[in-house]
Amino acid sequence: MRTVLRSEKREVVIDHGDNPFIMIGEKINPTGRKKLAEALANRDYDYICKLATQQVAAGANVLDVNVGAPGIDEVVVLAEVARMIAQTVEIPLCLDSANREALAAALAVLPGKPLVNSVNGEEACLNMILPVVKEYGAAVIGLTMDDDGIPDTAERRLKVAEKILERAAQLGIPREDVIIDPLVLTVGANSKAASVTLKTIELVRKEFGVNISLGASNVSFGMPERHTINQAFLVLAIAAGATCAITDPMKLALTIRAADLLIGRDDRGRRYLGSWRTAQAALLATGN
Amino acid sequence: MRTVLRSEKREVVIDHGDNPFIMIGEKINPTGRKKLAEALANRDYDYICKLATQQVAAGANVLDVNVGAPGIDEVVVLAEVARMIAQTVEIPLCLDSANREALAAALAVLPGKPLVNSVNGEEACLNMILPVVKEYGAAVIGLTMDDDGIPDTAERRLKVAEKILERAAQLGIPREDVIIDPLVLTVGANSKAASVTLKTIELVRKEFGVNISLGASNVSFGMPERHTINQAFLVLAIAAGATCAITDPMKLALTIRAADLLIGRDDRGRRYLGSWRTAQAALLATGN
Repeated sequence: MRTVLRSEKREVVIDHGDNPFIMIGEKINPTGRKKLAEALANRDYDYICKLATQQVAAGANVLDVNVGAPGIDEVVVLAEVARMIAQTVEIPLCLDSANREALAAALAVLPGKPLVNSVNGEEACLNMILPVVKEYGAAVIGLTMDDDGIPDTAERRLKVAEKILERAAQLGIPREDVIIDPLVLTVGANSKAASVTLKTIELVRKEFGVNISLGASNVSFGMPERHTINQAFLVLAIAAGATCAITDPMKLALTIRAADLLIGRDDRGRRYLGSWRTAQAALLATGN
Repeated sequence: MRTVLRSEKREVVIDHGDNPFIMIGEKINPTGRKKLAEALANRDYDYICKLATQQVAAGANVLDVNVGAPGIDEVVVLAEVARMIAQTVEIPLCLDSANREALAAALAVLPGKPLVNSVNGEEACLNMILPVVKEYGAAVIGLTMDDDGIPDTAERRLKVAEKILERAAQLGIPREDVIIDPLVLTVGANSKAASVTLKTIELVRKEFGVNISLGASNVSFGMPERHTINQAFLVLAIAAGATCAITDPMKLALTIRAADLLIGRDDRGRRYLGSWRTAQAALLATGN
């Protein structure tokens, strides 16, 4: 099933077929990033533009934009930052907020068809977020959690996915515009956490055929050598049927492109080699 | 299906269940390793013992032993080296030779139940290797190639696997003692090479339920940043159903243990954490 995102100048297709795995750059998010939080508070947008161009250079296909931090008026700032990023880079954006008004304000000024991150199966959230997604013709990420929290089993996460898809359909949002995020908890707390997520990916894909996204770095929280776990998890998720992830393209682009190549959807390894050349160029730039 | 290997003191179970993915240490092989080739030629066995203990410390569950190099009399040297390694480390060995007499001489002096690497579907090879495997009650790796070379498709590799399993059965070698290696060519030459191997793993597992091994580093030959490709390929192979690999435990143990953890077969992450501590200890040792 094809989810098509659009910026003013570009179209990005997320699909289970021969299309590449889509990287949604995660770095424009002030959570745990003090320098970005300060830049947002001071409306110092040069730094944010730099984060945007760096991620695009590293191979990001879409950019997540989150401005949620204490003292920030999301309703004003999300739209302002999103518009500025859209003028700086050509790829589509993923508006990351739980604030309906902030999403509406940003969707109103962005050209094309952005992605909204996210809705979940909680009643209040469905009622608040889905209408604005419909109003602006956006696509949306649906997290498999509801008023009872994050289910322990893949079967119950599938039920939440079904609920989100049904509610979206009732509002006239087509199924291909809902991307399911099966959520992953840390294996440090529960060593079955990742396998439940991988099973949810398989079930959701089989049952509904929709695209599947991941926020992939939670999985390793609290563990040593997190990068190795994050790499392995992304590859397992790709093998299970995930089609996009909110991730760090500087750290994980080459692993993602290697997985695409090995699965057989990178003719002559062109994208892998391109990703490697990008990494080399970045290394050289750092060295200078 | 459980393949059980034994040394004098240890038993290693290769299985699709909750058992860990088994690492067969690849480093005792003089191909491309000049220092080892010289050590073998000079019968300088200290260096070889060091390679053995290093790999065990890095988490190898089995050690591959290959002494094939110009000027080496495999019939004498394989047995001598294998016996010496068996006295140095406790884990089972994998005798890596295409020379029947060398295998017979080594099997005659090794206690327990080693693995033989390898037989393939060529008539001459089946007739030469399988009887010696049967005679000494060993297990054997069967490569999916035959007199026509390595088949292009997973379906035809499956046929070769079937032929090897049938011929082994005719000699009284139980199915669980044949581990199939579906072979992987480099993605640098053919970008569908890895996907054929992954599909073969799935088919062989589904059809015969036997264990599946890989020699995993060929896949990246000729490509830049080989380690990233090797990591991703091992993870994909584990997800597809491979249960062991001939690999470099120093480089790939942590990735393999991360995959096991994420798949849900490493209770409380104990093996992953152990592998990480081993890597830390090795780094400290190098630093001193």
